[in-house]
Amino acid sequence: MKLRVVVIGANAAGAKAASKAKRMNPHAEVTLIERGNFISYGACGIPYFVSDTVADVKELMSTPVGVVRDAAFFNKVKGVHVITGTEVVSLDRQSRTVQLFEKESAKAFSLEYDRLVLATGSSPSLPPLKNRDLGNILTVKAIEDAELLKERAVTGKRACIVGGGLIGLETAEALRQKGLEVTIVEMRDQLLPGILDPEMASLVERHIRQNGVEVETSCRVAGFDGTGVVNKVLTERGEIPADVVVLAPGVTPNVKLAKEAGLEIGPTGAIAVDSRMGTSDPAIYACGDCCETTHLVTGKKVHVPLGSTANKQGRVAGINASGGEATFAGILGTSILRVFSVNAGKTGLTESEARAQGYDVETVLSPAPDKAHFFPGAKPIALKLVADRATGRILGLQAVGEGAVDKRVDAAAAAITFGATADQLSHLDLAYAPPYSAAMDNLIVAADILKNKLAGHARGISPRKVRQMLDDGDDFILLDVRSPAEHAEVGIEGATLIPLGALREKLESLPKDKEIVTFCKISLRGYEAQKILDAAGFRDVKFLDGGIMTWPYELRRGGGA
Amino acid sequence: MKLRVVVIGANAAGAKAASKAKRMNPHAEVTLIERGNFISYGACGIPYFVSDTVADVKELMSTPVGVVRDAAFFNKVKGVHVITGTEVVSLDRQSRTVQLFEKESAKAFSLEYDRLVLATGSSPSLPPLKNRDLGNILTVKAIEDAELLKERAVTGKRACIVGGGLIGLETAEALRQKGLEVTIVEMRDQLLPGILDPEMASLVERHIRQNGVEVETSCRVAGFDGTGVVNKVLTERGEIPADVVVLAPGVTPNVKLAKEAGLEIGPTGAIAVDSRMGTSDPAIYACGDCCETTHLVTGKKVHVPLGSTANKQGRVAGINASGGEATFAGILGTSILRVFSVNAGKTGLTESEARAQGYDVETVLSPAPDKAHFFPGAKPIALKLVADRATGRILGLQAVGEGAVDKRVDAAAAAITFGATADQLSHLDLAYAPPYSAAMDNLIVAADILKNKLAGHARGISPRKVRQMLDDGDDFILLDVRSPAEHAEVGIEGATLIPLGALREKLESLPKDKEIVTFCKISLRGYEAQKILDAAGFRDVKFLDGGIMTWPYELRRGGGA
Ligand SMILES: Cc1cc2nc3c(=O)[nH]c(=O)nc-3n(C[C@H](O)[C@H](O)[C@H](O)COP(=O)(O)OP(=O)(O)OC[C@H]3O[C@@H](n4cnc5c(N)ncnc54)[C@H](O)[C@@H]3O)c2cc1C
Ligand SMILES: Cc1cc2nc3c(=O)[nH]c(=O)nc-3n(C[C@H](O)[C@H](O)[C@H](O)COP(=O)(O)OP(=O)(O)OC[C@H]3O[C@@H](n4cnc5c(N)ncnc54)[C@H](O)[C@@H]3O)c2cc1C
Ligand SMILES: CC(C)(COP(=O)(O)OP(=O)(O)OC[C@H]1O[C@@H](n2cnc3c(N)ncnc32)[C@H](O)[C@@H]1OP(=O)(O)O)[C@@H](O)C(=O)NCCC(=O)NCCS
Ligand SMILES: CC(C)(COP(=O)(O)OP(=O)(O)OC[C@H]1O[C@@H](n2cnc3c(N)ncnc32)[C@H](O)[C@@H]1OP(=O)(O)O)[C@@H](O)C(=O)NCCC(=O)NCCS
Ligand SMILES: [Ca+2]
Ligand SMILES: [Ca+2]
Repeated sequence: MKLRVVVIGANAAGAKAASKAKRMNPHAEVTLIERGNFISYGACGIPYFVSDTVADVKELMSTPVGVVRDAAFFNKVKGVHVITGTEVVSLDRQSRTVQLFEKESAKAFSLEYDRLVLATGSSPSLPPLKNRDLGNILTVKAIEDAELLKERAVTGKRACIVGGGLIGLETAEALRQKGLEVTIVEMRDQLLPGILDPEMASLVERHIRQNGVEVETSCRVAGFDGTGVVNKVLTERGEIPADVVVLAPGVTPNVKLAKEAGLEIGPTGAIAVDSRMGTSDPAIYACGDCCETTHLVTGKKVHVPLGSTANKQGRVAGINASGGEATFAGILGTSILRVFSVNAGKTGLTESEARAQGYDVETVLSPAPDKAHFFPGAKPIALKLVADRATGRILGLQAVGEGAVDKRVDAAAAAITFGATADQLSHLDLAYAPPYSAAMDNLIVAADILKNKLAGHARGISPRKVRQMLDDGDDFILLDVRSPAEHAEVGIEGATLIPLGALREKLESLPKDKEIVTFCKISLRGYEAQKILDAAGFRDVKFLDGGIMTWPYELRRGGGA
Repeated sequence: MKLRVVVIGANAAGAKAASKAKRMNPHAEVTLIERGNFISYGACGIPYFVSDTVADVKELMSTPVGVVRDAAFFNKVKGVHVITGTEVVSLDRQSRTVQLFEKESAKAFSLEYDRLVLATGSSPSLPPLKNRDLGNILTVKAIEDAELLKERAVTGKRACIVGGGLIGLETAEALRQKGLEVTIVEMRDQLLPGILDPEMASLVERHIRQNGVEVETSCRVAGFDGTGVVNKVLTERGEIPADVVVLAPGVTPNVKLAKEAGLEIGPTGAIAVDSRMGTSDPAIYACGDCCETTHLVTGKKVHVPLGSTANKQGRVAGINASGGEATFAGILGTSILRVFSVNAGKTGLTESEARAQGYDVETVLSPAPDKAHFFPGAKPIALKLVADRATGRILGLQAVGEGAVDKRVDAAAAAITFGATADQLSHLDLAYAPPYSAAMDNLIVAADILKNKLAGHARGISPRKVRQMLDDGDDFILLDVRSPAEHAEVGIEGATLIPLGALREKLESLPKDKEIVTFCKISLRGYEAQKILDAAGFRDVKFLDGGIMTWPYELRRGGGA
């Protein structure tokens, strides 16, 4: 008899698992079941459909050559039998049977499997909120949601996005581009929590505000008000008028089926799987948003639901379910988004995450142009590297800016996967020509700074600490070592100017025992000033990490003496 | 007494070594000697100065904030003493002395060192050619060359570039942009030898031709003709009229000083160094274009003169020369260029290089859009992966296309550094969102294809072999599995059409024992067709690697039945 492979859920993970299972074992009978009407769609493209960047929703469901991936396509091209509009309501592991319910016909039936793949995905995590059921309070997860949101997103209206994560920000941009007034409300004290550390997130926030989006952080939503349709969002801090509300709160894995069937659920609340994507039942695999995976830096279980991972895991599940052999080791939590013209990404651990895991961390903030500075179109990007002080091992990278952030995240992801140290990262043979990077790529420079810090040659101080020292009126010298012209244009209130080129001659004018914090545009010259002062016997000199470019607080514009 | 560090050669490697030596040991006396008049300039930017992309040559010698890096700058900012216009004519290792000759004053003098750094760089390798000394036969290496070339490169003139490597191609573009007629003459049978395999190079060649540049490969230059100034280039295959000739033949390390002083010269002809950049004399270091390094894939010594490497090596030499401790493990031969709107890069070994090293290789050709295909601005790139069949280890990546080639090269460089296998590459947690890649990045897809090939699931055949079979009139079926519309638009002469979606129903129409080569636009469907035919008992089915997109030969345009 033919091997019967049944896959539940027909989006990224399930469609991939089914397609691969059939290629792997052409004699298997592969059935793909989906409760919705759409299958194999790019949910990640929804924000671009909402903003009209992608004109037709069909493009999100088509192959690169324009063929719609519908049931007929899967049947003819992939050799996979697809059943849509049909929910799997339970599964019986004893008899290896799934019970199905076809919505339109209200018909229940069942299907036997030899191997089952759970690819049930995730759903928006919706906390109970007052008047949640008012009209125009929407989520963005599936194609139907996208169509509804696009219909309701009419120029001149006011939108409120609840949640300042990836999907919240992408949706905010989409609605702003459609001409709506947009406010983002985030419970935590920063945007993109879990993706960026606060100072990096504030660079994104600044950019979003410059594009006309209101941002309210540290603001908890209590509920909504309106008659029939929503007209305001109620928060602890007051009301926000809104004709359309988008809930973008993060997602919860769909584990009901698995749980009821007694499959092991992991510590993250997602389905527990081994490296073969096997569940606690040897006949059942899971993949994609419904299951957890291993973080390659910490070795701990995590739930990071992404389309990239869903496809990789689906492929592994498909191979194993059809009699092959494959493993998936885990992820780095790599994430990225573009919002307006800024790119923001991370891989590995943020500083907050690393500290929470108990690492003694060293960090680097390194802003610089993404190409040779003389090359037209070079744009700034800021990198933040996080490393384990004990071993020099790179724990994570964050990158924000209008330039090529994705490239540095990907190279770092590859390096971190293999446990790269600061020294190894600094010597990577990255591709250099002026249209692509500086002779020493941003990543190489960041790694050099890290090596300097780890060896005690360089001493940085974070913007947050310097802000605190200024606010507390601490007795220290904030030393701007840029040129007079740069100093006049923009600066940090309270700084003293001695251009780097003059520093060696003006050492006498500075007290040797006072704390000195040097800075420049990016703190390259700030670091050189530290070296000069160190050598001259100054006792307590540090440079402001990242200089003016990553200073997340207010800057003096003009008027520098 | 202070440690006296003398550095010979004041461009990328030397300027870096000197600056770092002084930071590392502020009490050292660091002297940087240069025979030319310019120091610390970005030679890599020369083509962009020639094309007017960079307006002022000073930009190539300035810091990102616009300060010119002249002798005064090095003195004041870096604490390094610079002597220009002065050649080191010999060095006496016994007395630790260098003999100098100042050109303008014709004055000879000497200087003692405790530690010496050789950063003498490289010079164009100029074979003896007939009438080489005619006017307007130029090279591109230093700022003076750039200024001269820019002066002579006048619209309407005819230029001939001798050498189809990185610098030749970049210069060809620059001159074309200035309105000259341009011909590239390359001795070998392809452009970019040593950087790309032939089929990848031909994609670049096609692009360059489309931009109006003539390309003559397999063409050896014998000499020049003209009266006073050149007016033609003499080749084995005839004459090429030219008012300006640029010799771009590759470079030779400047090892005269080192050789005469009895320092060890390595098998590549460059100065031999250990991982501390130490030469055979413990008081002397070398870095940059003048020395060799280790290839991290083969473990063999190589000479790959690049500005990126020069900076890294300079830093290591500077640290060690001033009493610190650092090592440099080696390189991957990573190279990249942009020519017109195509990007071409490589890291690790090409197929030719790998075969020459004795590896049993497997290769993949994988063309695909560089972003989600539905995302506006997505552009195609073609990847070629080369792997060791025995271990699955990735040996190299080449990438060509209008899209983000550099990102894939850098991620692969990081992975290859750590000995990544196909399976590890395929599971890298690369950053995905629609503006950056497909859900499965091009690199992931290429690695999956590689795994399929290594496991025997996928069988490819190279374009070259298929072209040969067609030319020989071999008895096989070339099966186009695209849609009728795609087939009508463009195709390969001699192919039979059965769209993939119809293949399962039309199996009867194909003979089971004949050799079948399937293809589509990129050979994804070609591969699926192979799987379907395999399962149906067809005995000899392969897909054309890379499909239409990387077919380096003529394509039928229109007229597909
Ligand atoms: C707006 C948006 C933007 C995003 N952007 C990105 C991005 O930029 N990058 C990225 O990597 N990821 C992104 N994602 C996440 C990505 O879309 C998901 O990770 C991916 O879709 C997960 O695929 P999956 O197949 O595991 O789960 P899902 O996409 O959730 O699919 C699961 C399917 O299973 C079906 N199903 C569930 N239970 C049953 C049942 N009992 N019976 C039958 N069918 C069932 C569901 O109807 C659903 O169709 C984004 C998501 C959204 C919503
Ligand atoms: C047009 C062009 C484009 C390029 N593009 C790229 C690119 O895109 N990417 C890339 O990575 N690399 C590129 N390169 C290569 C890069 O410029 C070199 O690798 C880099 O300049 C090497 O630096 P170096 O200091 O080792 O040697 P050099 O730049 O050769 O400098 C050596 C210096 O030493 C001096 N010198 C030599 N002997 C003596 C002596 N006896 N006494 C005193 N002084 C001496 C020389 O005058 C010279 O200034 C390009 C080069 C050119 C010419
Ligand atoms: C498309 C989808 C149905 C998967 O189906 P699939 O058949 O595995 O995927 P593709 O059609 O891309 O085919 C890929 C196969 O062709 C191979 N391939 C790709 N390019 C190739 C080429 N140039 N030459 C040879 N083989 C190639 C791949 O290796 C893969 O085969 P393998 O898995 O056996 O290694 C599933 O990924 C999906 O539903 N995607 C849309 C939703 C989504 O991804 N959402 C998340 C992001 S928003
Ligand atoms: C510029 C040049 C003189 C080197 O001088 P340098 O002082 O080492 O280099 P920079 O001015 O960039 O300073 C870099 C230092 O600042 C550090 N730095 C950079 N950004 C920093 C930041 N944001 N915070 C703190 N430190 C920073 C670096 O780590 C480095 O210090 P280290 O070497 O001690 O680790 C040399 O590279 C050169 O001549 N370049 C031009 C020619 C060239 O590169 N050609 C090849 C390509 S065409
Ligand atoms: Ca170049
Ligand atoms: Ca996204």
